[in-house]
Amino acid sequence: MKAAKFSFFILCLHVVSLVVIVGIPQTCPADSSGSKCGDWAGEFFPSIPKIKYEGPSSKNPLAFKWYNPEEEILGKKMKDWLRFSVAFWHTFRGTGGDPFGAPTKMWPWEDGTNSVAMAKRRMRANFEFIDKLGVDFWCFHDRDIAPDGKTLEEANANLDEVIALAKELQGTKIRPLWGTAQLFMHPRYMHGAATSSELGVYAYAAAQVKKAMEVTHYLGGENYVFWGGREGYQTLLNTDMERELNHMASFFEAAVAYKKKIGYNGTLLIEPKPQEPTKHQYDWDAATTANFLRKYGLLGEFKLNIECNHATLSGHSCHHELETARINGLLGNIDANTGDPQIGWDTDQFMTDIAEATLVMQSVVRNGGIAPGGFNFDAKLRRESTDVEDLFIAHVGGMDTMARGLRNVAKLIEDGSLAELVLNRYQSFDSELGALVEAGKADFDLLEKKAMEWGELQVPSAKQELAEMIFQSVL
Amino acid sequence: MKAAKFSFFILCLHVVSLVVIVGIPQTCPADSSGSKCGDWAGEFFPSIPKIKYEGPSSKNPLAFKWYNPEEEILGKKMKDWLRFSVAFWHTFRGTGGDPFGAPTKMWPWEDGTNSVAMAKRRMRANFEFIDKLGVDFWCFHDRDIAPDGKTLEEANANLDEVIALAKELQGTKIRPLWGTAQLFMHPRYMHGAATSSELGVYAYAAAQVKKAMEVTHYLGGENYVFWGGREGYQTLLNTDMERELNHMASFFEAAVAYKKKIGYNGTLLIEPKPQEPTKHQYDWDAATTANFLRKYGLLGEFKLNIECNHATLSGHSCHHELETARINGLLGNIDANTGDPQIGWDTDQFMTDIAEATLVMQSVVRNGGIAPGGFNFDAKLRRESTDVEDLFIAHVGGMDTMARGLRNVAKLIEDGSLAELVLNRYQSFDSELGALVEAGKADFDLLEKKAMEWGELQVPSAKQELAEMIFQSVL
Amino acid sequence: MKAAKFSFFILCLHVVSLVVIVGIPQTCPADSSGSKCGDWAGEFFPSIPKIKYEGPSSKNPLAFKWYNPEEEILGKKMKDWLRFSVAFWHTFRGTGGDPFGAPTKMWPWEDGTNSVAMAKRRMRANFEFIDKLGVDFWCFHDRDIAPDGKTLEEANANLDEVIALAKELQGTKIRPLWGTAQLFMHPRYMHGAATSSELGVYAYAAAQVKKAMEVTHYLGGENYVFWGGREGYQTLLNTDMERELNHMASFFEAAVAYKKKIGYNGTLLIEPKPQEPTKHQYDWDAATTANFLRKYGLLGEFKLNIECNHATLSGHSCHHELETARINGLLGNIDANTGDPQIGWDTDQFMTDIAEATLVMQSVVRNGGIAPGGFNFDAKLRRESTDVEDLFIAHVGGMDTMARGLRNVAKLIEDGSLAELVLNRYQSFDSELGALVEAGKADFDLLEKKAMEWGELQVPSAKQELAEMIFQSVL
Amino acid sequence: MKAAKFSFFILCLHVVSLVVIVGIPQTCPADSSGSKCGDWAGEFFPSIPKIKYEGPSSKNPLAFKWYNPEEEILGKKMKDWLRFSVAFWHTFRGTGGDPFGAPTKMWPWEDGTNSVAMAKRRMRANFEFIDKLGVDFWCFHDRDIAPDGKTLEEANANLDEVIALAKELQGTKIRPLWGTAQLFMHPRYMHGAATSSELGVYAYAAAQVKKAMEVTHYLGGENYVFWGGREGYQTLLNTDMERELNHMASFFEAAVAYKKKIGYNGTLLIEPKPQEPTKHQYDWDAATTANFLRKYGLLGEFKLNIECNHATLSGHSCHHELETARINGLLGNIDANTGDPQIGWDTDQFMTDIAEATLVMQSVVRNGGIAPGGFNFDAKLRRESTDVEDLFIAHVGGMDTMARGLRNVAKLIEDGSLAELVLNRYQSFDSELGALVEAGKADFDLLEKKAMEWGELQVPSAKQELAEMIFQSVL
Repeated sequence: MKAAKFSFFILCLHVVSLVVIVGIPQTCPADSSGSKCGDWAGEFFPSIPKIKYEGPSSKNPLAFKWYNPEEEILGKKMKDWLRFSVAFWHTFRGTGGDPFGAPTKMWPWEDGTNSVAMAKRRMRANFEFIDKLGVDFWCFHDRDIAPDGKTLEEANANLDEVIALAKELQGTKIRPLWGTAQLFMHPRYMHGAATSSELGVYAYAAAQVKKAMEVTHYLGGENYVFWGGREGYQTLLNTDMERELNHMASFFEAAVAYKKKIGYNGTLLIEPKPQEPTKHQYDWDAATTANFLRKYGLLGEFKLNIECNHATLSGHSCHHELETARINGLLGNIDANTGDPQIGWDTDQFMTDIAEATLVMQSVVRNGGIAPGGFNFDAKLRRESTDVEDLFIAHVGGMDTMARGLRNVAKLIEDGSLAELVLNRYQSFDSELGALVEAGKADFDLLEKKAMEWGELQVPSAKQELAEMIFQSVL
Repeated sequence: MKAAKFSFFILCLHVVSLVVIVGIPQTCPADSSGSKCGDWAGEFFPSIPKIKYEGPSSKNPLAFKWYNPEEEILGKKMKDWLRFSVAFWHTFRGTGGDPFGAPTKMWPWEDGTNSVAMAKRRMRANFEFIDKLGVDFWCFHDRDIAPDGKTLEEANANLDEVIALAKELQGTKIRPLWGTAQLFMHPRYMHGAATSSELGVYAYAAAQVKKAMEVTHYLGGENYVFWGGREGYQTLLNTDMERELNHMASFFEAAVAYKKKIGYNGTLLIEPKPQEPTKHQYDWDAATTANFLRKYGLLGEFKLNIECNHATLSGHSCHHELETARINGLLGNIDANTGDPQIGWDTDQFMTDIAEATLVMQSVVRNGGIAPGGFNFDAKLRRESTDVEDLFIAHVGGMDTMARGLRNVAKLIEDGSLAELVLNRYQSFDSELGALVEAGKADFDLLEKKAMEWGELQVPSAKQELAEMIFQSVL
Repeated sequence: MKAAKFSFFILCLHVVSLVVIVGIPQTCPADSSGSKCGDWAGEFFPSIPKIKYEGPSSKNPLAFKWYNPEEEILGKKMKDWLRFSVAFWHTFRGTGGDPFGAPTKMWPWEDGTNSVAMAKRRMRANFEFIDKLGVDFWCFHDRDIAPDGKTLEEANANLDEVIALAKELQGTKIRPLWGTAQLFMHPRYMHGAATSSELGVYAYAAAQVKKAMEVTHYLGGENYVFWGGREGYQTLLNTDMERELNHMASFFEAAVAYKKKIGYNGTLLIEPKPQEPTKHQYDWDAATTANFLRKYGLLGEFKLNIECNHATLSGHSCHHELETARINGLLGNIDANTGDPQIGWDTDQFMTDIAEATLVMQSVVRNGGIAPGGFNFDAKLRRESTDVEDLFIAHVGGMDTMARGLRNVAKLIEDGSLAELVLNRYQSFDSELGALVEAGKADFDLLEKKAMEWGELQVPSAKQELAEMIFQSVL
Repeated sequence: MKAAKFSFFILCLHVVSLVVIVGIPQTCPADSSGSKCGDWAGEFFPSIPKIKYEGPSSKNPLAFKWYNPEEEILGKKMKDWLRFSVAFWHTFRGTGGDPFGAPTKMWPWEDGTNSVAMAKRRMRANFEFIDKLGVDFWCFHDRDIAPDGKTLEEANANLDEVIALAKELQGTKIRPLWGTAQLFMHPRYMHGAATSSELGVYAYAAAQVKKAMEVTHYLGGENYVFWGGREGYQTLLNTDMERELNHMASFFEAAVAYKKKIGYNGTLLIEPKPQEPTKHQYDWDAATTANFLRKYGLLGEFKLNIECNHATLSGHSCHHELETARINGLLGNIDANTGDPQIGWDTDQFMTDIAEATLVMQSVVRNGGIAPGGFNFDAKLRRESTDVEDLFIAHVGGMDTMARGLRNVAKLIEDGSLAELVLNRYQSFDSELGALVEAGKADFDLLEKKAMEWGELQVPSAKQELAEMIFQSVL
């Protein structure tokens, strides 16, 4: 292991900190102590009221039209079905930067530094946001809530200082839906973290996950997530895929062992994504990840965090990925966002499609709910949306969309005709021979005998258009 | 089970038989006995010589420039690495029909019937083709080599008559690379075969596979393939995916049991494809299929037949799918074709891309060869290619492309620099701690300790452009 | 020009006629006179009532919930905004065949022939369908309404006989939205029609369009459509694209001249599609087709028929294509269907997405309506939907979806806030300098002077999430 | 126009300058005067020799195997066919940053500032690079070669200082292939430049193009490029597309007028790209851009800069876009790069595919060459390629690939059989009637008469597989 070349302190997801060098006049400028705004008092969102439910006829962009947290639907409160979570990185570290453009957003509480003081002020903004939105959960990466350090020790110390505040601000009701380690932003991870070609990077990633898991545990996080943004390859020409996958399995085994060692009971989640930033990521989709977990004997230890935008990038509908996870006993959490059907990269938009939301909620209801998982808004404002209120409008829109989906599922269930249509399709298997087939006891000899007895068959219509009509009728 | 509604005799893949109704004047017209051309004598391809190797400078479209079957490359004869197979359906039942167009090809030996006599004449053409091309293998579906019947018994009898001739024509050297049952063309399979919502269809499919497996065994076929063209869904709204997958597993279990019962030792292969004709097929890609096999305890009983065009439709490179299959111990056979990178459906073109062929052969060489599998040309003439000689030109081009790929792999191995580049990338794992990691014995405490000791890391260049340059240099 | 090789009578779109050879027992079997069912009396759809408007709370699949033809919305009757049309080919000649499967649909009135008698009975079914559905328009290809012939003369005679009946059955209210010639099914068109490499095919296509245009004129068709299903290439390696495009322009010029010669006043429409069946079609999308029309001086003579499924296959949203057509003064007609966002081929599904339908109707309303065009249901039952009632359910669903879109647009307009948001975004151009810019009179010197005067700019939020919220609120 | 809000100095493409805040120890650290390294002496690439042609058998990564600049091919020197250009932004301002990761590259000559002094040192590195590579052209954006300023005046002054040095370093042989203005990085352009909803931004963009055009003229640049990275929309919901397109046309008209005013004779080029960063860019592809130019009467004033990666993102092959541009008389320049066929965003890789390069060169040869355009390497090192030598390896690989393509085209032309195959396909048009058709004088009556005379047609094979075989034989 040679001497260090990089000594980056990578501060945050994306290119947040570009602002420093470009001399933006801040509302609250940096001073030598890191920040003058440490005493930022009162509200971060003074013009935004606590968001209330006003019902479908409301025209108020800062009110819920469909999400009524305490209202009971299908035997549970809406908030217990939906378990919404704010994603710290998009909401507080999103800058609007993209591969062709500099940041566009400079929230008024930002002082242009990446100091611990700034991190703490940002954390206060986060909890005011959560409070006004009326949700109980938040999600974070280690490096978006606290500054990195020149050494791992310094980074850990920064993190400790910030989470102490977060713990205090959480109060008794709020907690992380999940925490995670950012293993993709820093250049050391350019070849992967658990699958890096460099052993030192593997070790560093382990140390970072160790700490992030401790922190998540400390904050009462209900889940811990792995998103392998650099676990994949850019070209197979220079890659030993088999060796990398073996390393990834060792890494996950060590994570499971460490979780048990510290007595952390949260669920470990893997978040599939097919590609971007790599050409091909190892956790391509739900089925690929399930295969990995089965191959390495890790099946009981992990569930999946399904993201809708990742689903569509992998060529599946979001509904397909949720159902695949559910059927494999792996549905753990949902990153509630959406992509653009004509765009080939991750746009992380707030979901606004009611039909899609209804399908998503159908899987959740079939699953008996998603707890201890929930709905994390891994979604960001468009680059061109630069008002503080846009943060609220986007979340209100996203929450209402999911809530409307839940209400539609209730209507579908009450109506009953779609479920009946499906049940009827398979009724021929509700027979003696059907039972044998389903028990794995109908051999080819028996089946051939029956086929010859029965002769040609009447195969009924699949009634897809009728199913679609029923489905549309509840939207 | 109600009385039959359909009594189709579906004759062949695609819409071959449309010719009957449209009154094409045949070279050899049908008569009341089914065919006048039963005594078609001598050659089907009189103007085509036996294809010979003439080397890279040849301009003869009917000669090999790169494929020299007996030449030894990397310790094996080319023919033993490549084990080429002719796909009966594309070559002899392909019509040029597409969703917007009627058939365009009327080979001179076709009489416009789907009689057993015609099937036998066609089989003779097949073996003359195989002989002139100089390959040892062929692949078939039950229903493309013999006519369907009004009953299963009649269909089976037709099949028996045709395969008796095929067995005779095979001689001692030629045999099927694989056989399979056509479970997608007939309307009874519209909702699936093993995953149909109808038990009667499930039974019929079992009977058909039973017979097709017997036939493959009889002919000395080295493998038996399952392609689940209708095993999937058009919409989840009317589908019980979990129940369908359970049925599919039962079906495969019964197939394994029957194989053992009849003493057939060929490899069972599943052929992944992401979609088309269904919206979503259950055997989406290699990893999805591996997950299915693992979930249902079928892993040791099946391998995969990777098709390059299916690979790219699922969002992967062909090389990725081959490597995924290989790493999972599942690389069984290759359907050597290619798609169009801008087209979203299965075009089944003959592979002509030398770089892709080189990558494909690299996986095969790493696998120590592909036997008992081989390279099946699941590829068809373009609709607009209507000369008999086009059948030969296409196969010669496809064979030369794969042969050139093999020669390139030999050059890469001899040069050695690409393999060295890859080995060097991972050398940090060839250490004491690396060994612990790879043995699953490096826990997070140890790794954190090392990470803190080492401090920041030097991460070397991945040298992708150099790897690409080396790779291109052998093309 | 050599002697004929093909003497196909291609009967219909897709592979309808495969039924003949496969011996389906018909309700009404063929006899030597072509058909015994000539005297098929009474109703084709005895169990289907005339479809009525019952309002959103109705659960009746055979009733409209949103389409109320005589109701006035935004100053016009719904039926005058929507001008729905039944596509003869999908509804009456669709068979459920696909590239991997035989037909699945055998409507009870079909006798398995492609006789003129059968064509006439089918035409009666068409008009009963139209009547029960309550629409005023239908669309057709020459070859789906009448059998092809051994010669062009015979084909024309067949067509004349069938359209005489159609004219009678149309009565005073019903007429074609458009007619067209089928220039893609017959093998003669495999290299193109107007862009075929064969002059004889070019001439044949001209003759066929000549007749189809006469027929459309005779029936009172309001438009005439060109869909160039074979006008494109499979590979540029064997194609002279420039020469082919020149031929296509000559063909269109001749069509314009002939239209004028016969005094036909209908609108000529070109239907863009990016690919399928060819690798690349010349009328790729709206902008490509507009470029072609401008290049060859044909702009005033044609409008576009925008198909939503074609739009998404070309990488655009349907809304984008409609707006592009509208802005270029070319929005002529809409093929109201939809594709699957994860599927790379034309699925021609009935549109059921309310949000998309609202965007489509927004373009139509902005256009001041679509007449003399309308909404043609270029959409087909899924292969697995085989009940006669499915034909009605699908159309009712499709009509209700568009009607709901129209109602939503009315709500959007009434609300006004979305239009206001857009207007406000551009208000800086409603100034003196803005006017100069828009008049093309602001040169770089002036603009630079202003830029220097103004210094750095305040760029407001684009409010995309707010726009989406407003839009969703009317769904 | 209100007071400025942003006072960004956006320094460069992508996130280059993030290095400042992250404390990277530089080889040559910044001091208060902006840079200590102003006196960086001697070579930037001391270990890299001048790249020489060594022929195909060379294993030297720093030698050309196929590009021999002075060698004559098809009547011109290779360097005159190929006119290679280095893209300043990728080569000298590329950082390896991506949407999920921080920069990975810190070239030794960088001091971490964005000072004018640093810009000048970088410019020296650029010309050493160009000299060692042996090319005659370079391309640049205004803001990648010189720092932005607090005001437009300051930015212009910075630019003037840097280009004075560039002019000196160019000497007599080297000159820009093209210059351009960076109208996408700065947040002011987030809604577009010429199509911004803000008049002030439109004016600012005009001022920036004015200066960039002057600078390009001063340096002897042979072309001036417009890439409209923000000219498009994120959603039509908040966009007046028609008004924006009108503004874009006014902008281009003003640019043409200014070019003439200053006596600049370079070609104006528009670079199509379908999307990214926007959801939909107005210059989607060659045909779309041609339609725009025709609609607004700008056709004679612009040509196109076709980028291969943009071509494939728009659903076309690169060859298709080149041929479309050529046929429309618009082929002006080529951005020689490539994408990944499975990736939905712009990867800007160096082209290494020999077959694609051959097709590209075929269009160029048909065009009689590309001058005054050339081949600009709008291509970047992979993020993980971090050695200085990788910059050279990548360019050598890219140049050799294009050179090999040119050599292959020469072989194709010498062989002649592919051209003959194409000519023969259209021979039926080389007739009297064919001439009438091509002159627009064959009307439908005449054509129908001929069609009836000729009866059914013999349509020959398209020989696609033969064409592919011939093509492959020269690779």
